[in-house]
Order: sequence, then C-alpha cells, then structure tokens
Amino acid sequence: MKISLTGIKPTGNIHIGNYFGAIKPALALTEKYFGVYFVADLHALNSNPAPAELQQLIYEVAASWMAFGLDTEKAIFFRQSDIHEIPELTAILSAITPKGLMNRAHAYKATVDKNAETGRDPDDGVNMGLYTYPILMAADILLYDSDVVPVGLDQKQHVEITRDIAENLNRIYGKTLKVPEGLFAEEVRDVPGIDGRKMSKSYGNTLPIFASEKALRKQVMRIVTDSTPPEAPKNPDKDNLFQIFRFFGTPERVEEVRQLYLHGGLAYGTLKQELFETMLTTFHPIRERFNHLMENKSEIDAVLAIGAEKARDLGRPVLAKVRKAVGLDK
Amino acid sequence: MKISLTGIKPTGNIHIGNYFGAIKPALALTEKYFGVYFVADLHALNSNPAPAELQQLIYEVAASWMAFGLDTEKAIFFRQSDIHEIPELTAILSAITPKGLMNRAHAYKATVDKNAETGRDPDDGVNMGLYTYPILMAADILLYDSDVVPVGLDQKQHVEITRDIAENLNRIYGKTLKVPEGLFAEEVRDVPGIDGRKMSKSYGNTLPIFASEKALRKQVMRIVTDSTPPEAPKNPDKDNLFQIFRFFGTPERVEEVRQLYLHGGLAYGTLKQELFETMLTTFHPIRERFNHLMENKSEIDAVLAIGAEKARDLGRPVLAKVRKAVGLDK
Repeated sequence: MKISLTGIKPTGNIHIGNYFGAIKPALALTEKYFGVYFVADLHALNSNPAPAELQQLIYEVAASWMAFGLDTEKAIFFRQSDIHEIPELTAILSAITPKGLMNRAHAYKATVDKNAETGRDPDDGVNMGLYTYPILMAADILLYDSDVVPVGLDQKQHVEITRDIAENLNRIYGKTLKVPEGLFAEEVRDVPGIDGRKMSKSYGNTLPIFASEKALRKQVMRIVTDSTPPEAPKNPDKDNLFQIFRFFGTPERVEEVRQLYLHGGLAYGTLKQELFETMLTTFHPIRERFNHLMENKSEIDAVLAIGAEKARDLGRPVLAKVRKAVGLDK
Repeated sequence: MKISLTGIKPTGNIHIGNYFGAIKPALALTEKYFGVYFVADLHALNSNPAPAELQQLIYEVAASWMAFGLDTEKAIFFRQSDIHEIPELTAILSAITPKGLMNRAHAYKATVDKNAETGRDPDDGVNMGLYTYPILMAADILLYDSDVVPVGLDQKQHVEITRDIAENLNRIYGKTLKVPEGLFAEEVRDVPGIDGRKMSKSYGNTLPIFASEKALRKQVMRIVTDSTPPEAPKNPDKDNLFQIFRFFGTPERVEEVRQLYLHGGLAYGTLKQELFETMLTTFHPIRERFNHLMENKSEIDAVLAIGAEKARDLGRPVLAKVRKAVGLDK
C-alpha cells in the first residue's frame, strides 16, 4: 500500500473551514493509502509561541484529529519532535541542498519583498527556522519513503523542493531516497466565513467546532445576511448562510431550503437556529470525544507514543540507508 | 570540573603541524578540564566527500587522536553523528536564530565576496550545510553545558555566534542554556613547512606523521635550505630546517646544533638525517598504535560507542531542559 504523508500544524480553535477544507479530505486518504499523520510541533516553534500555549495547541490538535476519527490503529499518528530521525535526516539533507533553493521558497521571498517595501533589511524578522523549514519538511516526507503528499495548489512548491532535494541526494550519492509525488486535492469547496469571506481565524469569521454551545450559537447568529424580508424570494447562491448550511443539511433538506429561498417564506433567523442545531447534532460525538481526551491527556500521550514507535520503525531503515550512502556508516 | 569541548574535523595525512599546533594543546586540556572531544563527521558532509573516503577519514582521525594519547577513560571521545540529540537541538536553536547572524558568518561572507569578484550569484556553490554550520556548531557546544571552547583567534566568531544563540534562547524562554566562553590558546608556535611557509596540506609542504618511513624520509630530505657550505656559519633563526628540528631535539641537543649553525661545521644533510631519525623515535609508539588501530577498526568502533553513550548521558538532560523551556514537552 502506498504511503501518504500529512503534516498537521498545531493550531487551536479548529473551525468548520479547517474540517471540510483540510481535515475531512485528509482523513479520507486512509481509504487508498497507508496514512502517516504528524503534529508538526518543530515547525510550530518558528513563531516562538509561548511554551504553555504550544503545549496546549499540540494537545488540542491531536485530540481534534482523534475525535474526527483518525484511525490510529490503521494509520500512524505521532508528534514530529518525538522522531529524532527527522532532524538527523535534516542535517544530512542540508549538506546537499543548494542555498539558492531556499532563496526561491515562496514564504521567504514574500517576507523579503515585504521588507523591501517597508525599507527594512531583506532578512528582517526572518529566523533560521523559517528560512530552513523546506529542508525540515523534506526530511518529514522523505524519512518514510512517502509516495504521495497531499497538498493544496498553494503548497505545490513544498513538494517540488522536497523532490529537488531527494533528486540531489540521489544524483550525488546514487539512488537512495524515494522521490515523492504531490497529490493535489480534488476541488475542495471553500467554506465561507460568517462575513462571506473565506473562513479564517485571521478574519475572526469562523464557526469553531469545539467552542462552548453558547459561543458557537453566538457566532451562528452573527452570520451576515441581507435585509430581504422573510416572505420575499432570495438568491440562495448569493447567500452566505445558505452556503454554510449546505455543508450540514441532508441533500433533501438543503433542496427544501433552496426552494424556500427561491419562492419566499424563509426567515434567516429560523435557518440560523436550524443550522446551529444541525451543527450540534453533527459534531456532538466529536465534541464529546474531544472533551474527554482534553480531560484525559494521558490517553493522547499513549496514542502518540505508540505512533512515534511505529513512525521510527518506518523511518529508521531509510535513515540508515542514507547514512550509509553518504559515508557516515559502513 | 569544568567542561571543555573540542571538535575534530575528519582529515587524513595528519602532519607535525597539526600535532604541535592543535592536537597536543587540545590533549593537554584534560589536565584542567573534563574534556569532551568529537569527530565532526556531520560537518565533514558539507563538502560532499566520497562516502568511502569519509569513512576512512573518520577512522584515521579517531585512530590518530587515540594514538596520540587521548585518554578515553578520563575524557569523552565520540562521533558527532552518533548523537541524535545534536541535530535535535539544532532544529530547536534554528527557531531562535536570526538569519542575519548567519549572513555575518566569516566563512559565508568570504564565499559571497569571492562570488561577487567573479561575477557569480552571491550564493553560488553555497550549500545549506555550509550556511547553517554555525547553528550545528552551537548545538555541538551547548548540548553538554560546555564551559569553555578552545579556539584559535581565527575561530573567535564561532564562539561568539554560539554565545549569541544561547543568549537568544535564554532571553526568549528564560535562562536555560549555559553560555560558554572561548578559551584562546596561549601562543602556539606555528610549525614551518618544508618550504618555509606555514605547514599545510594545501601547500603540499607537510611532514606526515603516519606516512611510511620511506615517504617521511623523502619529505625530510626535501626540506628547503640555502646553499651555504657546511663549514660556513649560518643563522639558525632564519633556517627552516633548524626551526623544524627545534620541535624534536632535546633542549641540550637543540642548543648544540644552534652553536654548530653559528660557528660553522653543520651539514644540512646530516641534520636532516638526524631529524628523520628523531622523528621516527618520537613517533614510534604512536605510529605503532595508529597502525594497530587501523588494522583493528572494531577497537575504534568500541571506544567511540562507549563515548557516544557517555556523551548522550551528558547531553540528554540539557536537551530535555530545552524541550521543556520551548514548550515541546511538559
């Protein structure tokens, strides 16, 4: 079975945009692939989060993916920083990675451009973790002889850089590393935020899955709609509330509501209440499981520890092969 | 007892310049410090050596230091790449190291300047191993709470960068890492090469300690002298042969030879023969031990394996402290 590799940034307040846009498609990979999933806590260090906050985010993201149904028996789920083979491989890959490749990385270039606009030193605010993260990411992927890396189109370059690095090593030291393929997701519908823009924490327009019922209800009620009165016809395709509702209603109910929009008779407030209740029903078992795990963190620790062992078993032979190829070992 | 940390580049054909200039003073450190010595094989990767050559150099350098009398019971002696805690610490340190600090590193700047002179891209020929080596070096040092790092004046910047990195981490996350001091060697007499320039492999002017007797004799006979006849007085302070001889003769014999220089009666050829014989006597037990070890590499492996365990015992608590400080662990 081919291996797919998914890195998960430790992030809190997971919302329905994360779920439908990234988590659900990522979990579906286990149908076709042997899924390797990890919490990218080393990458998270690059923004120098407060230590207690990082701890919390690691647990939250682990608990949420477990609650969403990541099958930790079938797939491998672990914390990046539990696998010392990753930084070891990173150190070796650095020696065959031209600096020019890093200079061309989009995230770095964007910072340099921004600094240029504001008249700052090109490297102002850039730390070496940010600058070198494509090598760490390459090690994340290459350590397990991963076959595919599911990525959005905006992350296409990550896979390209990883392929370049693998090919460099293979060229210098002979074929050693598997060169992975990007697996570009089929069209994923963006979930609109409550203000109609793309749902994103940075816009403050999210519907968070693990918030309290009260907080979630408040957000649902804040979904921006126009001032068309209930009895007037409305265009469902242009209404933000309807676009969000489509993710939750059954196909039949969605069609009924669409007809109400087209022919009049729908009060936004009523649909908001229905959306809220449907969300609660949909996410009820997931929220329960998440809360249980967050109150019993040792269960998370145990799962991640088993995952780390499995990941190391998978990665150890690859690292050994690389060490031998470059002359570190006999 | 304070800890001193010495990294040793895997290099072959060790010569008397290496011995008197670097190895002997480094070995003397164990009189005052708990000595931690390592073969820097990860750093050696940056020039992408042929794998078999790197293997050979790792063994040669390990065998030579053991033969020169590194007390592997009293001190710790290991291979860098056996300590996975080093790249792990490197990954964490990267997140708190400003890129500007790397841009100012002498070795990198020298390459950029050279590229500018020849109209090349500033980063032409720079790989990420070379660019990031000051962070790896910082991890090499900081992992053991090293107190001092013996360095030549030309390596002063290495210690400064390491101190900067340690202080950065301490500033962001609270006092965690010991900030080491540079230990600047007392005046070490440079050993002249057989052509009078500083002895260096790149000049091909060395007297190699582990070469065959025949090869060593040939090099000694090639020591450049002037054409003053034996009976004429000569200036010992300006004669290359005498300057080399001083490292080997007993103080009494050196003084006798000096008088012969000043008052006439010395044939260069005779002194060369004496130098050759004295070198053989001096290095005889060391050459024997070296040859034994190179024919019994498992003895080297065993020593380095024990050293690695000791080094990891020393480094593990420091890494654990750092992981906790940055929020990777509870």
